Amino acid sequence: MGKRAVWSGAIAPGWDIVANANGGYLLAIAARALGGALDRPDPVTVTGHYFYPGKAGDVTIETQVLKEGRRFGSGRADLLAQGRTLLSCIGTFGDLTEASGPEIVDQGPPEMPDPDDCLPVVATDTFPPPFMGKIELRLHPEDGQFLLGKRSGHALMRGWFRLRHDEPTDTIALLCAADAFPPTAFNADFPVAWTPTIELTVHVRARPEPGWLRCKFATHFVTGGFLEEDGEIWDSTGHLVAQSRQLALIPRG
Amino acid sequence: MGKRAVWSGAIAPGWDIVANANGGYLLAIAARALGGALDRPDPVTVTGHYFYPGKAGDVTIETQVLKEGRRFGSGRADLLAQGRTLLSCIGTFGDLTEASGPEIVDQGPPEMPDPDDCLPVVATDTFPPPFMGKIELRLHPEDGQFLLGKRSGHALMRGWFRLRHDEPTDTIALLCAADAFPPTAFNADFPVAWTPTIELTVHVRARPEPGWLRCKFATHFVTGGFLEEDGEIWDSTGHLVAQSRQLALIPRG
Repeated sequence: MGKRAVWSGAIAPGWDIVANANGGYLLAIAARALGGALDRPDPVTVTGHYFYPGKAGDVTIETQVLKEGRRFGSGRADLLAQGRTLLSCIGTFGDLTEASGPEIVDQGPPEMPDPDDCLPVVATDTFPPPFMGKIELRLHPEDGQFLLGKRSGHALMRGWFRLRHDEPTDTIALLCAADAFPPTAFNADFPVAWTPTIELTVHVRARPEPGWLRCKFATHFVTGGFLEEDGEIWDSTGHLVAQSRQLALIPRG
Repeated sequence: MGKRAVWSGAIAPGWDIVANANGGYLLAIAARALGGALDRPDPVTVTGHYFYPGKAGDVTIETQVLKEGRRFGSGRADLLAQGRTLLSCIGTFGDLTEASGPEIVDQGPPEMPDPDDCLPVVATDTFPPPFMGKIELRLHPEDGQFLLGKRSGHALMRGWFRLRHDEPTDTIALLCAADAFPPTAFNADFPVAWTPTIELTVHVRARPEPGWLRCKFATHFVTGGFLEEDGEIWDSTGHLVAQSRQLALIPRG
């Protein structure tokens, strides 16, 4: 089997939700190391399985190269803290500047009011989480009423995303965007306080151009205590830059 | 890190498409071993990354347990033949007889004529592939015209699936069903001979009841040389039993 390496990193403070670091952020840390191990810049498809919550502090990332091809490289990465695996992921990386081919787009980006006419999610000590000090979210007015205690009745969450402090969103940061929004279930017609992620897969299609990202997350099937959350992320030029799907759990009451 | 084990298996003859074993079948072989390693019957979510095609013959499966929880167990499995990793997967398994919770279903199963009024895909020496001797597929008349050289113009493939010889479809066999249909791209408006799978993720929601499975595969975004294929699999009682998504490549001309 392929080359192994151990990387050092840290879960920075301020990326947490109720003291646990955001899942997309954890996946981005693991993927950053995996991209280094494979010496390829862009995560074409990455899947993470979540085992334990992450707290701010030092982490190590153990990577293993599985395949080195001409166009793509594949490997896996485990994110560990205090000897425990928080997250394990597998990914195939490449260079998306090469991307070309026929184009079919069934549906364009979601229609939304401009960011200034959407509902900002602002960091407070309670809800929204401190995580919102790192990213900027503006929710579609139809989907953001849950902030005021009014669920829309549709398991849908649309809005704008960008990193704060003018930090550009690269293809690794898209993994973070894919898990940055409030759960779609907050707009569904059943009571749920949180929907922990079992697994998150992100397909990155292109490098995003600078500017706000237009995002849409929707759930179509809630069955047997599980739900999927399907995401689309579009850049400021109207190109699909990523698709995501996560399987999440409805905690038993 | 967790317990490791090595399993012996075989890629049976007759599961091939142009001499290469079907990707869902390979994932099912790896997942069968992983379920054994975790001692859990049902793959809740499994992701495979494909590295080399598989030929009929002996294989070994190397498994590693990553997390053993109360309700779920997670691990990974590599499928090897002649010292080469064909496929690497990560999965979280559980027991789906426990499944319960609130239900939301946006859209029910796809409307289709009865299996006898759909187009059978029949095994010949050329196309369709020998694989069709193991499974039975009946395509929706609107989507099956490509067999006669007429693409529908919609990247959609609907139809019925069952294993031949009255073999019941368990939750591992659903992984096979998730990759058993002709590519959606065969109905799209661009010329493509094949769309090799980079990665396939399957979420299993429930154990299927006996009978034909109602399946729908659709592609919404073809961009930059990539396409996704989203699948839904419904059992004979009208329950969603699995969702799938694969990232596939449009080979360069």
